[in-house]
Amino acid sequence: MSQQSHLNEFFEFLRFPSISTDSQHKDAVDSCADWLLAKFRKMGWQPEKHPTPGHPIIVARGETKADRPTVLIYGHYDVQPVDPVEEWDSPPFEPTIKGDKIFCRGATDNKGQHFAHILGVEETLREHGDLPVNVIFLIEGEEEVGSPNLPPFLEQHREELSCDICAVSDTGMIGPGIPTLTYGLRGVACLEFTVRGPKMDLHSGVYGGAVANPAQVVAELVASMHDPDGRITITEFYDQVLPLEKWEREMWAGLPDGDASTLAETGVPALFGEAGYTALEHRWGRPTAEVNGIGGGYQGEGSKTVIPREAMAKLSFRLVPDQDPTAILQLAQRHLEKHCPEGCRIEVELGHSGPAYIMDPHSPPGKAAQNALQKTFSSEPRLIREGGSIPIIQSFKDILGVDTILLGLALPDCQIHAPNESFTITNFEAGIRLNRALLEELAESI
Amino acid sequence: MSQQSHLNEFFEFLRFPSISTDSQHKDAVDSCADWLLAKFRKMGWQPEKHPTPGHPIIVARGETKADRPTVLIYGHYDVQPVDPVEEWDSPPFEPTIKGDKIFCRGATDNKGQHFAHILGVEETLREHGDLPVNVIFLIEGEEEVGSPNLPPFLEQHREELSCDICAVSDTGMIGPGIPTLTYGLRGVACLEFTVRGPKMDLHSGVYGGAVANPAQVVAELVASMHDPDGRITITEFYDQVLPLEKWEREMWAGLPDGDASTLAETGVPALFGEAGYTALEHRWGRPTAEVNGIGGGYQGEGSKTVIPREAMAKLSFRLVPDQDPTAILQLAQRHLEKHCPEGCRIEVELGHSGPAYIMDPHSPPGKAAQNALQKTFSSEPRLIREGGSIPIIQSFKDILGVDTILLGLALPDCQIHAPNESFTITNFEAGIRLNRALLEELAESI
Repeated sequence: MSQQSHLNEFFEFLRFPSISTDSQHKDAVDSCADWLLAKFRKMGWQPEKHPTPGHPIIVARGETKADRPTVLIYGHYDVQPVDPVEEWDSPPFEPTIKGDKIFCRGATDNKGQHFAHILGVEETLREHGDLPVNVIFLIEGEEEVGSPNLPPFLEQHREELSCDICAVSDTGMIGPGIPTLTYGLRGVACLEFTVRGPKMDLHSGVYGGAVANPAQVVAELVASMHDPDGRITITEFYDQVLPLEKWEREMWAGLPDGDASTLAETGVPALFGEAGYTALEHRWGRPTAEVNGIGGGYQGEGSKTVIPREAMAKLSFRLVPDQDPTAILQLAQRHLEKHCPEGCRIEVELGHSGPAYIMDPHSPPGKAAQNALQKTFSSEPRLIREGGSIPIIQSFKDILGVDTILLGLALPDCQIHAPNESFTITNFEAGIRLNRALLEELAESI
Repeated sequence: MSQQSHLNEFFEFLRFPSISTDSQHKDAVDSCADWLLAKFRKMGWQPEKHPTPGHPIIVARGETKADRPTVLIYGHYDVQPVDPVEEWDSPPFEPTIKGDKIFCRGATDNKGQHFAHILGVEETLREHGDLPVNVIFLIEGEEEVGSPNLPPFLEQHREELSCDICAVSDTGMIGPGIPTLTYGLRGVACLEFTVRGPKMDLHSGVYGGAVANPAQVVAELVASMHDPDGRITITEFYDQVLPLEKWEREMWAGLPDGDASTLAETGVPALFGEAGYTALEHRWGRPTAEVNGIGGGYQGEGSKTVIPREAMAKLSFRLVPDQDPTAILQLAQRHLEKHCPEGCRIEVELGHSGPAYIMDPHSPPGKAAQNALQKTFSSEPRLIREGGSIPIIQSFKDILGVDTILLGLALPDCQIHAPNESFTITNFEAGIRLNRALLEELAESI
């Protein structure tokens, strides 16, 4: 199959605005699932579309033979919202090629990365009529909202999803052409809180000075989470944090300069965080408390001198081994409630969460993954962790009892979760080759 | 003229969505000015509509006689925005009567209060064919955006606006039926600041912990303006504050319980502010630093784990004698710039401002005002200050050289600047009688 026909199919897949967090896009998410279903049918498989209380899960499997290992390949067809939409240089859901890059929401995260696996399997089947291992594709539509329905689904289908290893491409490469195995991920725990004061918006001249301002209180609560050195002040927050091991810090120190690349990729005027850690250590091996959204009062043109009746903030905590997300959310909730002044009321709503993940990169499947990466990119793979969260990886461990190989194809400048997300044609095609090499290596090693 | 015909005319005036802060409503503001012009023409006057770089100013004067004092009556036909519009129980620009109350944006602030003066003058003219004093109406369309074009207008028309006293109804009454003379107002100084960090929204997993989060920085900057006791921490902020005088504190202590009424009117669970002051003293006699709007990151449904590229806050400071608004804005800007961490850049945009105002309530025009209030409401007037700002009052003093009598008709529950603003029919009609009594009293006293 030609590169052009690969791209044509990929672009059809990308055009669905499958934003899982926004109920207005429910139909688009569903249509996107149907498109995947049709794709697997074209490959001669009998895929299944499983409804959930949220968005459907697609399961597709090739021929199963008892004498060979089973590899479960996971991906997600849902994508992040696109706002601020005015900052996109091309329509967010119209794939646009510029040079080697395909610009589209979901291009890298995660449609491109798992669709390359599908095309790899399709090519192997076309050339050999069979695969070297049993393959199950498991592709969900709720990763961007924390995969609430996938763990119950894994529980219910534990037998039919039984496998020896999971493979996921939803992480990043150190740089173009540098193959990268990710052996750890941070966890995440989200919450939102609303502070309410007066029963209505007040004239800040008439009442200002005598009543607490909910926007001020939200700001104070957000500010209260860090000390001036950037260390998180929530009581017991760091108690379960495993320190980084010596070999990890040394390996990461040997990577291309993380401090400089963090500055270059983000454009910030200076780095941030508690002293004693590099940027990569902050991003991969240390927990955070972050405000992802804050809002209250008048945000339009001009001024409006009100004391708003309420204000809110959305927080997320990035977690490392061995922090427990449920415990962290409880600590955070206690911190916020304790620090809310008596002039306001606070309501804390706990959101999705998942623990950090870590696997041994020197295990047999870890070695197989390194070999496949070496073959695909003709270069020594680097061993890293990543800062993002894929809570489902922990569920594969807990429910299916298997480790996950994380073979990321995202490049540092691909702008996932931001305007102008892109995926390179180079990595899209490499992903197809990587799938083919990986299945061969896994057939031999496990 | 009947009450019904008064209301019919008033409702026509109210229906213009004359929101001065929002450029989308420019035509409505202009049409509202034209309506006023037509009203004065119907009274047999030759009013003038003066264009400005913003919204037009209406000037209307009756017959001028050299042997009697001249009273300038000021009002503003522009109104505040209506958001959150979903919290209105009736359409914001469709006057809706419930019991004694007329619900509409601008009903109290300020269309109702100055339109009563117009009707008072119209009635006196109809009954007597003349007025006891010379009257000039000066009605502008930019009070809610800080009256930027009125001071230059006063400078340019200083001679034709020459007068002995100004009268303004744009303040409040202690309670229904309690006549109130306001002898002081707080000033105001506004600014907006934006904090920018990364060049784009970042994935909070990928980069979180290594870069400063602009929403977090905005929260910290807002929080940095107060100490835990509610005292403002900006250096030199209190240096020019005149302490309250003993007689003022005693008079205010004799008013209906300000602490209890502040709690009841606002619905807050507890009062706020530095110790040692009553709620009324906080509201009328002490300065504030308030956040009127704050925003950054994802504020929609669900969660989006980003580090936003920028976040912002709108601040306003309520000022008391003798604080200088320009100096306060400079102190605030210096505070914000000094406290912004090196991982972000801050941009501070200074907005409108005006100093606090104070007059002597025991002067001849102050006494005339008290007499008119006594006649209209058959009760002893109370002497108060108010917390809101009418910067133009200071301009009348500085440019026209005259004091201003503040004869407010707003009630504590009229919800100016908030959803469901209202004005009572009782006070609308009292305003008409008050104008007639005031002009008679002023004719005798000055």
